[in-house]
Amino acid sequence: MTGRVHNFNPGPAALPLPVLEQVQCDLLDFAGTGMSILEMSHRSPTYEHIHDQTIADLRALLGGTEEHALLFMGGGAQMQFALVALNLLLPGAYADYLVTGVWSETALEEARKIGDARVLWSSATTVHTRIPMPGEFHVNPEAAYLHYTSNNTIVGTQYTYVPVSRDVPLVCDMSSDLLSRPIDLSQHSLIYAGAQKNLGPAGVTVAIIRRDLLERCRPDLPSTMSYVHMAAHNSLLNTPPVFAIYIVGLVAQHLLAQGGLAAAAARNREKAALLYATLDSSAGFYRGWAQPESRSGMNVTFRLPTPELETRFVVESTHAGLIGLAGHRTVGGIRASLYNAVSMEAVRALVEFMEDFQQRYA
Amino acid sequence: MTGRVHNFNPGPAALPLPVLEQVQCDLLDFAGTGMSILEMSHRSPTYEHIHDQTIADLRALLGGTEEHALLFMGGGAQMQFALVALNLLLPGAYADYLVTGVWSETALEEARKIGDARVLWSSATTVHTRIPMPGEFHVNPEAAYLHYTSNNTIVGTQYTYVPVSRDVPLVCDMSSDLLSRPIDLSQHSLIYAGAQKNLGPAGVTVAIIRRDLLERCRPDLPSTMSYVHMAAHNSLLNTPPVFAIYIVGLVAQHLLAQGGLAAAAARNREKAALLYATLDSSAGFYRGWAQPESRSGMNVTFRLPTPELETRFVVESTHAGLIGLAGHRTVGGIRASLYNAVSMEAVRALVEFMEDFQQRYA
Repeated sequence: MTGRVHNFNPGPAALPLPVLEQVQCDLLDFAGTGMSILEMSHRSPTYEHIHDQTIADLRALLGGTEEHALLFMGGGAQMQFALVALNLLLPGAYADYLVTGVWSETALEEARKIGDARVLWSSATTVHTRIPMPGEFHVNPEAAYLHYTSNNTIVGTQYTYVPVSRDVPLVCDMSSDLLSRPIDLSQHSLIYAGAQKNLGPAGVTVAIIRRDLLERCRPDLPSTMSYVHMAAHNSLLNTPPVFAIYIVGLVAQHLLAQGGLAAAAARNREKAALLYATLDSSAGFYRGWAQPESRSGMNVTFRLPTPELETRFVVESTHAGLIGLAGHRTVGGIRASLYNAVSMEAVRALVEFMEDFQQRYA
Repeated sequence: MTGRVHNFNPGPAALPLPVLEQVQCDLLDFAGTGMSILEMSHRSPTYEHIHDQTIADLRALLGGTEEHALLFMGGGAQMQFALVALNLLLPGAYADYLVTGVWSETALEEARKIGDARVLWSSATTVHTRIPMPGEFHVNPEAAYLHYTSNNTIVGTQYTYVPVSRDVPLVCDMSSDLLSRPIDLSQHSLIYAGAQKNLGPAGVTVAIIRRDLLERCRPDLPSTMSYVHMAAHNSLLNTPPVFAIYIVGLVAQHLLAQGGLAAAAARNREKAALLYATLDSSAGFYRGWAQPESRSGMNVTFRLPTPELETRFVVESTHAGLIGLAGHRTVGGIRASLYNAVSMEAVRALVEFMEDFQQRYA
């Protein structure tokens, strides 16, 4: 067996090694049941305990209460793009979107297949290199909801504040930074996140919805598409993605044992600070892509002097055991994703590689 | 570590031990990549190979060609109940349903949230203890599609023939018997199945759709709900449930190595025959629930003389390492699910237990 690489994948992404070791240990016989978690009924007491404990641990991490229902759903965040509108964008109403990248554009497009979804503010004119500053947009009090994307993985931008939505329900796609830092749940009516960045493996989407918003949802939707039905059945309407939820539970326990989200945020800040400092002290060899005030702590993107050097950077870093550094296939460049499970040691190895690479090619 | 139990769970259900051992072996370092399959990008060549090989192996098992697209989707079969109608039940059209149990009733109800779905034949009057015989229903040539459920897990009935649908597209929920026996793909326009019976773990749904039917699908649906979009992107529109697909691939390889679906069907027939023979030779102590001509090879259901004896049967069998034998929570009784990964050895152990139990309590 070779050693484990440094994994900078944009998602699915690195998981904590102790979590993987636990999964491996439990795989043929979970907790003395004589069967794998992969073979276990979702109606068994053993699984029901895992299910409820995972919800409780996520609540504990997020500082949430029973005021928000916490749901496990299928289809990925991209299905949520449609479900948000199906549930909340009723005939005659409209919704506002803050567009800060490809994923919020896609969220908008999918919502437009359902109803009247509008652009309240867009960073398209600056090729999505920044997020709006407070005061650059004003919420329409008649909007059914205001939607934003807290972290944008492709250019690498991130909100450092919660957009003011007043009485308009605030909806957020937190796929790429949920559990990476503390959040103010009380300001959000609906948060959703595909698990495959900071929460666990691909295959489950977490939705956190305030119970008073459930009362505004369309009641006549197909059950698996309805937040109301899913909440009424504690996400056990039909067979949930058992294994993915089990791993989300292990990740949540691991985060709690490591000091919760404040501690995770401190570790993530330290990692991103080191990498951005490396860009900024490279005399222009590595050029950070996002505007400095909008930089993401999760996805650090940069360019090299030429596309040829970028290709060489990806090839050589891969050989050096630094995996997943190619930028998004639509834009190129370099992207280092620094999700929770990426260690400071991995970032130090990347910085060492970058300094050496610059020495050789500058 | 205790020994592995005999697992008769109705789903999620038993998986082949060699598959679980392979998963365990690969868990920290997949094929020398230095990372877990759980941490791998769905755009990496390693995963793309797994994805395409899994499709190819499923096609090889099913005798399918490129004429049918094979899709991996989220949300479970229950989401397919709605997606079938969303994609195929256009305004002004109607669809026919053969109702043979709770799951086809639910499929019908979900479709009715979308459009005009009608009951062509129902076994409700006989409490779903049988499926229709050929000639008991006649397809309406104007129907948008004809929907049936090939195996009914709760009462334990199964079609042994393909309903005649003539030029009407035939749609089948094969969640509980896909890969358990050869099927005639050419007679079906759309087949869907949650993986968690014979295919793999919970968390992925396979949909097999004839390409000419794609042309009749509604084109303006949200992407993740559209068979057309999913087929156009080879199920890589967004992040698929990577790990569940990987296990489906291992299960498919295991089945191919064991002789394919004809051999699987022979093993399954032998298991079911032994168990039904035990019921029929018990002098009425064990009473098979489904009518004999409609008996399922996947889910064998039976009653004991009293509910108290049924409770005792479940308790004692569990102590004896025979797991998952309680009937569905809505109906009670006993149910032994005999999916592919349940061995003849497990069925023999169950039969021995049943004979001993009858000796003691008859």
